[in-house]
Amino acid sequence: MYIGIDVGGTNLKAGLVDESGRILADARTPLDFRGAEAFAADLAQLARDVLRKGGVSEDQISYIGIGLPGAVAHGSVLYTCNIPLKNVPLAELFRREIDLPVLLENDANCAAVGEWLCGAGRGSRNFVTVTLGTGVGGGFILNGKLYAGGGTVGEVGHMVVEKGGALCSCGRRGCWEAYTSATGLIRMTRETMARHPESLLHAVSAENGGRVEGRTAFQAARAGDKAALELCRTYVSYLAAGMTNLVNILQPEILAIGGGISGAPEELLLSPLRAQVEEECYPRHIGKLPRIVRAELGNDAGIIGAALLRRAI
Amino acid sequence: MYIGIDVGGTNLKAGLVDESGRILADARTPLDFRGAEAFAADLAQLARDVLRKGGVSEDQISYIGIGLPGAVAHGSVLYTCNIPLKNVPLAELFRREIDLPVLLENDANCAAVGEWLCGAGRGSRNFVTVTLGTGVGGGFILNGKLYAGGGTVGEVGHMVVEKGGALCSCGRRGCWEAYTSATGLIRMTRETMARHPESLLHAVSAENGGRVEGRTAFQAARAGDKAALELCRTYVSYLAAGMTNLVNILQPEILAIGGGISGAPEELLLSPLRAQVEEECYPRHIGKLPRIVRAELGNDAGIIGAALLRRAI
Repeated sequence: MYIGIDVGGTNLKAGLVDESGRILADARTPLDFRGAEAFAADLAQLARDVLRKGGVSEDQISYIGIGLPGAVAHGSVLYTCNIPLKNVPLAELFRREIDLPVLLENDANCAAVGEWLCGAGRGSRNFVTVTLGTGVGGGFILNGKLYAGGGTVGEVGHMVVEKGGALCSCGRRGCWEAYTSATGLIRMTRETMARHPESLLHAVSAENGGRVEGRTAFQAARAGDKAALELCRTYVSYLAAGMTNLVNILQPEILAIGGGISGAPEELLLSPLRAQVEEECYPRHIGKLPRIVRAELGNDAGIIGAALLRRAI
Repeated sequence: MYIGIDVGGTNLKAGLVDESGRILADARTPLDFRGAEAFAADLAQLARDVLRKGGVSEDQISYIGIGLPGAVAHGSVLYTCNIPLKNVPLAELFRREIDLPVLLENDANCAAVGEWLCGAGRGSRNFVTVTLGTGVGGGFILNGKLYAGGGTVGEVGHMVVEKGGALCSCGRRGCWEAYTSATGLIRMTRETMARHPESLLHAVSAENGGRVEGRTAFQAARAGDKAALELCRTYVSYLAAGMTNLVNILQPEILAIGGGISGAPEELLLSPLRAQVEEECYPRHIGKLPRIVRAELGNDAGIIGAALLRRAI
């Protein structure tokens, strides 16, 4: 058995995971960062919690995998996005608490491993995950192994698809993320609302306390609103541009989409996306179309992938 | 020792290659396609030629690697771009002539392997080649292995960098290839000439018998022509957009540029390209800048890579 820990921006989550990727017990605690050593102690306490809940002892655990939102190398955290960890030997600090082997990996890579072994990517040799959330992240399984590149790999969101286009948080213009993240969709939704005072988008937003969210466009489109339907088509056209790029560059057998936006209605998101990628991608010339599917494991992907990490490295 | 064969659109070239990647003897013959079996016999004859020239016997050869402009799998050619080979068991046909192990691979992948082992990519674990020729091709060494994906992998030229932009031969609009191939640069050069009758581009072309080539823009720019300098800046900005995308997606340690255009003057091509990629790429956030260099082996890369293929698979 294994323990997988997923370090999020606000919560730490851990799971006791068996060989088949089932979570037998889990635990979570709010992230309360009080320095690197206390952080390692909190992770160890979480591991002890799932051992206790699962009725399992330390010597039944092969290793502990930890997914972190940042770059890691050789048991150290090089940096993380939301937590002040920089060049911290986390594996060593953790092992002062629990003396088990520790594997560290980027959290998006862990989620890709989880989906590959137990979710949408099962059975494939080349597999790409794309997560449409506040930003756009990605993970690659290539040649049957996690491709972790230089440590911050899979910054697929920062692929320019419209040179000179919308300004991205990374400083470039026209990044895929600037159009296809929830943030990008919300920006385009607000722009559409400003251009179309008659649109149902206003009513949908008003019902939601005046908030504009990633789903606002899909909700109004589903109700038949013309401006919202056009907005959804534009959104999918940007999504398809980057997806087709990834298909042409890497030719994965399966491409899985996760994150909040992936829950949008099939006929507004996945169906037109598949049609556009199939029409434009290069491998169509040899009849090798990729399968484009929804990610299956949701928030558990990170825990499961961290726990089964050794199979992918 | 090994034999590497590079199947081009017009010529077949073979080399006798030693452990260190040196070509000890070579031979070439025009491509004269008269069916799959005759083609295999021509390749075998070429192999015999280099054995004879090198004074080496068959039993001193470990295997023969063959690079082809198309997709291969399990000893068969699935298709090629310029030669009517479709689902042909080439390895088997070849072994009827010479009974040595045969490895088949895409020619761009062979060139990437050659550059990785003996040229611009030496010592790296993650390495990308981009060839700027009539089209734009690519090859990837990832995790220290050739990444051959679905067989037509590395279609990096068909990555959209300007959604809705210039029409590409693949049917998409705004592909990187439509701007950065020699074909794309020639198109942009003609457009610049039409807009700028005063430009030196006209004189450079006239000196060249009225032809506009990939180097026309660089020649006029080097002579100080304003319109040509602006054209070269535009060209490099497109080149940098796609290069930065590849850096963000794959984070190679080294990115090598080959093909005719890579011979352009350093100050007009590589220097501004490096500056733009370094300014825009995501790994700059962790101080991990890729090295952008010229490919080193020229036309020998394919032969050397085919000969040393086994080290990369």
